[in-house]
Amino acid sequence: MIYLDNSATTLPDPTVLTSFQQISSNYFANPSSIHPLGGQVEQLFHMAKKQAAELLKVRQEEVVFTSGGTEGNNMAIKGIALQHQQRGKHIITTEIEHPSVLEACRSLETLGFHVTYLPVNQSGVVAVEDVQQAIREDTILITIMHVNNEMGSIQPTKEIADIAAKHPKLFFHIDNVQGVGKVPLSLSHPGINLCTMSGHKIHGLKGTGILYVDNRTTLFPLFHGGEQERNLRSGTENVAGSVSMVKALRIIKEKETTTLDQMYEIRNVLFEALQEIPEVIVNTPNNGAPHIVNFSVPGTKPEVMIHMLAEKEIYISTKSACSSKQADASKILKACGFTKDRTTSALRVSLSYETTLEEIYQFIETLKQAIRQFKKVME
Amino acid sequence: MIYLDNSATTLPDPTVLTSFQQISSNYFANPSSIHPLGGQVEQLFHMAKKQAAELLKVRQEEVVFTSGGTEGNNMAIKGIALQHQQRGKHIITTEIEHPSVLEACRSLETLGFHVTYLPVNQSGVVAVEDVQQAIREDTILITIMHVNNEMGSIQPTKEIADIAAKHPKLFFHIDNVQGVGKVPLSLSHPGINLCTMSGHKIHGLKGTGILYVDNRTTLFPLFHGGEQERNLRSGTENVAGSVSMVKALRIIKEKETTTLDQMYEIRNVLFEALQEIPEVIVNTPNNGAPHIVNFSVPGTKPEVMIHMLAEKEIYISTKSACSSKQADASKILKACGFTKDRTTSALRVSLSYETTLEEIYQFIETLKQAIRQFKKVME
Repeated sequence: MIYLDNSATTLPDPTVLTSFQQISSNYFANPSSIHPLGGQVEQLFHMAKKQAAELLKVRQEEVVFTSGGTEGNNMAIKGIALQHQQRGKHIITTEIEHPSVLEACRSLETLGFHVTYLPVNQSGVVAVEDVQQAIREDTILITIMHVNNEMGSIQPTKEIADIAAKHPKLFFHIDNVQGVGKVPLSLSHPGINLCTMSGHKIHGLKGTGILYVDNRTTLFPLFHGGEQERNLRSGTENVAGSVSMVKALRIIKEKETTTLDQMYEIRNVLFEALQEIPEVIVNTPNNGAPHIVNFSVPGTKPEVMIHMLAEKEIYISTKSACSSKQADASKILKACGFTKDRTTSALRVSLSYETTLEEIYQFIETLKQAIRQFKKVME
Repeated sequence: MIYLDNSATTLPDPTVLTSFQQISSNYFANPSSIHPLGGQVEQLFHMAKKQAAELLKVRQEEVVFTSGGTEGNNMAIKGIALQHQQRGKHIITTEIEHPSVLEACRSLETLGFHVTYLPVNQSGVVAVEDVQQAIREDTILITIMHVNNEMGSIQPTKEIADIAAKHPKLFFHIDNVQGVGKVPLSLSHPGINLCTMSGHKIHGLKGTGILYVDNRTTLFPLFHGGEQERNLRSGTENVAGSVSMVKALRIIKEKETTTLDQMYEIRNVLFEALQEIPEVIVNTPNNGAPHIVNFSVPGTKPEVMIHMLAEKEIYISTKSACSSKQADASKILKACGFTKDRTTSALRVSLSYETTLEEIYQFIETLKQAIRQFKKVME
């Protein structure tokens, strides 16, 4: 099996799963219980939080464990909107955000908020000047992703943070679900208030994630209750899940230090090989993330291509998993200004640190065969 | 070890954990991915949902997998409020709800909603007539728990459902986190629209749960995004967690059929033994749930009692875990109209189906010793 759908989800690291299992069995008490069993679990939870804070170079209390990326994005966006609506009701985002950001913004429009959806260029990148110019007196939130999930394009989050830092009345949230462990991002950079991370995109478990909330930022919680997690996210702490999340984070951060160049090399081989296939147009910009390459094969149906590759046990995807069941054109590629034959025939290959050059060569050969086969059938 | 804090959380069933692990390793793909790996996982997810629906005797599409009880309660309460606020802004609940219900209601007051908090009697039970009388033209939601988490008192949810059924403009939500598998509740009873369940209270895993949402009920989702779960709860499905939740549900439902009488017998032995200790006042009503017995030892400090019992490896709790760190009196016992010496000296014993008579005898003996020891020190 050659699994090249790592932006949809990743194979959990066995050691991550072992941690989850051991804690679930041996440290099952409720960390809020005041007996010693509860105290032990509470300590374990604090250790996990401390480790996460060290890995992310933030303060311990700024790490909030969540159930994943969609929760993190909704918690940040709705949380800022509902908490700070007296100050203003304007939000800035882009046209190429993940559905969990776009739909959270749209839902707020039904509650009387105003949202500016900024365009992107053909490389799938928003212009810093556009962000600057969109800021109004009543803007309370800028929410822009770090790495686009379909295109792999990297947004100028650092420059946007610099702008945000000059507007202390607004908050800046980054959806970094796709960037963690692959495209460096310093959360301590001034101007960044919130950042979403997901466990299952970095070989952790589904149902786990982190929302970074800097200690000057207040939110209207999505979950009210027992006041866990700095009162930002109530509910019995999923300690086993949180420890597993931190373990996944540590492993991917180590790989980011040691193996990122190798991932770029493999990605560049893929990139160039795709460019050499006459039927293929590469959509991802050359300076994109190391793990996502999006390309179109105009005239083919992506579902058919995916099934032809799957017959050879090679697994890739069309659009992002969260919108893959909708048969229409990719909204993200459309936002990049691509023609319909490109937006309706796009495929996405997403690598992990385990992906080998051999697998890429095999994928390229199988893709060429599939294109030939498809053309033959259609002739 | 004698673990009698099962209302705070339970030891996960080993087979539940094994299911979680196997699915996480072997069926890790994103169910939204259109390649066959995704398809397999999607099928597994549908099977889990089908099984849950059969166990709960509801329709498949009415089962929504969540991250737990606090999410379920917040999703139901805020979801109804935000979705149906044009119709009215009045909510009815009781003074003895779990913090995740009470605080969700309070948070809505800050957004302009009005909440009626109904009182309870000395048995910790709300009066059906009070519910009836509290209904106004603008009432959109009644949210009342099935089994109280501190007292074990059972609320007249069936009678309340009958009233709700006569008011088709309002929704009725039941927090059944404590009742699942111990106090029968028929979700198909007319008038019940929403019901919260949690995995970790029934030997499942933390981070798992189910919200029943009947198919006539629409909600403003807490999580917008990829439109998973009937568009009520977006986010990559935690398939391993969902399967584990269903497994835990199946096991506890079986025990409810086969072993409930035995649990009541053990509980009654505990109940009577406590009543025979002169220093003890039992707070739980005689007709309460089979797994929760709350009692006070006026003049003692509950934290001290808990630590004295813990020295003999017996683990019980004070208030509910979600408010156990607050040193003040139990709000729930206060709502029952108990005097301060009772509300500040309360202890909770909560059983599981694994609890044995031997353990109860040992607990009673150790409690008596602890009371004697405490009195000696204080003399």
